[in-house]
Amino acid sequence: MPAFQSPGPAGSPMTKTERFLAACRRQPVDYTPVWLMRQAGRYMVEYRALREHYTILDLIKSPELAMAVTLQPIDAFDLDAAIIFADILPPLEGMGLSLEFVKGEGPLIHNPLRTPADVAALQVRPPEETLHFTLDAIKLTRQALEGRQIPLIGFSGAPFTLAAYAVEGGGSKNHVRVKSLMMSDPATWHSLMEKLSVVVGHYLLAQARAGAQVLQLFDSWVGQLSPADYRSHVLPHSRHALEIAREAGVPIIHFGTDTAGILPLMREAGGDVIGVDWRIDLDTAWRMVGPGVAVQGNLDPIALFAPWPQLRQRAQQVLDAAHTVGWPGHIFNLGHGILPQTPVDNVRRLVDFVHEYTANPKDEVA
Amino acid sequence: MPAFQSPGPAGSPMTKTERFLAACRRQPVDYTPVWLMRQAGRYMVEYRALREHYTILDLIKSPELAMAVTLQPIDAFDLDAAIIFADILPPLEGMGLSLEFVKGEGPLIHNPLRTPADVAALQVRPPEETLHFTLDAIKLTRQALEGRQIPLIGFSGAPFTLAAYAVEGGGSKNHVRVKSLMMSDPATWHSLMEKLSVVVGHYLLAQARAGAQVLQLFDSWVGQLSPADYRSHVLPHSRHALEIAREAGVPIIHFGTDTAGILPLMREAGGDVIGVDWRIDLDTAWRMVGPGVAVQGNLDPIALFAPWPQLRQRAQQVLDAAHTVGWPGHIFNLGHGILPQTPVDNVRRLVDFVHEYTANPKDEVA
Repeated sequence: MPAFQSPGPAGSPMTKTERFLAACRRQPVDYTPVWLMRQAGRYMVEYRALREHYTILDLIKSPELAMAVTLQPIDAFDLDAAIIFADILPPLEGMGLSLEFVKGEGPLIHNPLRTPADVAALQVRPPEETLHFTLDAIKLTRQALEGRQIPLIGFSGAPFTLAAYAVEGGGSKNHVRVKSLMMSDPATWHSLMEKLSVVVGHYLLAQARAGAQVLQLFDSWVGQLSPADYRSHVLPHSRHALEIAREAGVPIIHFGTDTAGILPLMREAGGDVIGVDWRIDLDTAWRMVGPGVAVQGNLDPIALFAPWPQLRQRAQQVLDAAHTVGWPGHIFNLGHGILPQTPVDNVRRLVDFVHEYTANPKDEVA
Repeated sequence: MPAFQSPGPAGSPMTKTERFLAACRRQPVDYTPVWLMRQAGRYMVEYRALREHYTILDLIKSPELAMAVTLQPIDAFDLDAAIIFADILPPLEGMGLSLEFVKGEGPLIHNPLRTPADVAALQVRPPEETLHFTLDAIKLTRQALEGRQIPLIGFSGAPFTLAAYAVEGGGSKNHVRVKSLMMSDPATWHSLMEKLSVVVGHYLLAQARAGAQVLQLFDSWVGQLSPADYRSHVLPHSRHALEIAREAGVPIIHFGTDTAGILPLMREAGGDVIGVDWRIDLDTAWRMVGPGVAVQGNLDPIALFAPWPQLRQRAQQVLDAAHTVGWPGHIFNLGHGILPQTPVDNVRRLVDFVHEYTANPKDEVA
């Protein structure tokens, strides 16, 4: 494979922070940076050991523990970025919803939104009051990473995905309740989404001010919508959240799954980097959103369960697809979060392969 | 909206059978035909009444009962096609797997495929031996529909979707087992898919010979795959099944969900009509597969939960999108199966609206 990214300054290799920020800004890098969504998680023995003593919310709400979990994959693998250990749902707690992570069932909202009055009662409070634990975790972790020159990513769930949990009360197969509300009662819907966009935007902004050098907006469920519904009922609110966050001046990654039909609309909503899942070729996706944004993705998380030659082949397909387009600004990642049973050895080999393959494009990397 | 489909023969309106087959073959029709995936089902009180006395497999395996269920929506709504009441999974029973529909949990395979020996033991038997009940139901139902001039659709699950159930043992969130097998052991995978493609192809062919005038291949889970994996591990087997079925000379609809990234590959695999879910605009989808195929879709099933003005607006968006492309060959449908709690009145209004809006394009349809 020919060289497709210019090297960094002669004689001085880029730091991980320089490399990651350069890729977000579509500037040349010496090799493709890589991180993995949900990289701190159950597939790691170190994480499972902590979880024997603490719930997920315990870990999130103790800045020291959140920092410890954030650093676990950084210590284990040659990743190019850390992402603060948190969850997309705590912003809903700050608005007045009661959140629990039920073992084996995932998140549960005890008082989901069922009436316009429920939406009217939602509180919009500053993140310094409601999400201080994550802001403190970011401050601590940023200090810990400073000497290692590794950038820290902050994140939030996007307005639609938060609305989906708030209305459904948890995960959902068909999202009948939230989409019915959206289609049936636009006034209540837009009021809900407006509140969420303000909370999300200010939460992202506060994370950047606390030290996060990159932000990611997770719209995990947005792929359940038709393009027309996304455009009219979601896009303005995602845009509003992103505009608030943009005040911080740090790059923002805008990610969703099942988005092959709405990628241009997500790009219209905003973000410096568009996150892409594995259901579309990365080159096709990048051409859909154009050269004006970077892209992140998009290996199928299940490829990590395959033997190395099969995993390597699929990782190479992703890197070659990014190369085919010929534009700078690719951040390698999975197309969605890493799964709990993922073999750790494959994670290590994958991270190293991305670096070796893109740094030494003419060499054969075994 | 201007007229966009030529009327039928002057003075002789088309029969439903003529209209549906013409649309499949991209010939002019007097109005857009409409049917709904899973149109015989739990949202109908008549169906729920039968289910008080019979299991799903009881209904499928009695040709008389399967016919009765098939006709329920035909008697209730002005639909342009019937689809034989059956399920995508019984072909797996004929291959040696033990199938049960567990109340509230969906299908369960008691002896899922776990080893290459399990795959080697799968039997490939003629559908006349293993699926005679559905072939008999088709013969009976075709006779019942003949006087009403309504076409009958036969169908089968596609090789990948059947493989997913056979390996996972039921529904699955991430399809780790089936995709791991696909990526890790290509020889066993292709052997499994080859058997499935022969069973599926001959089952479809036998349904057409029993009287089905149209066939649909349901690849419900295929949207879990990357385009590269679909191309190398699934496409050749779907194509093989479709080539066997094509011997019957009846139109074939090729449907999947989450397919916005692989529609051109599904078209390459085969089918006269490509079924599209609601996650992509229908005009975008049609342009991706080109003028050489008809398209079916693509209303979000959850739009049926909205008040009529909101439902009507979304149905009109689908019809206008088809119109925008300017090619003949649109069959109106949902983007996936109708959901159990769907309001029946909205189904009736939707079906009538599709007819009125496309037959009298210059009139205001309320």
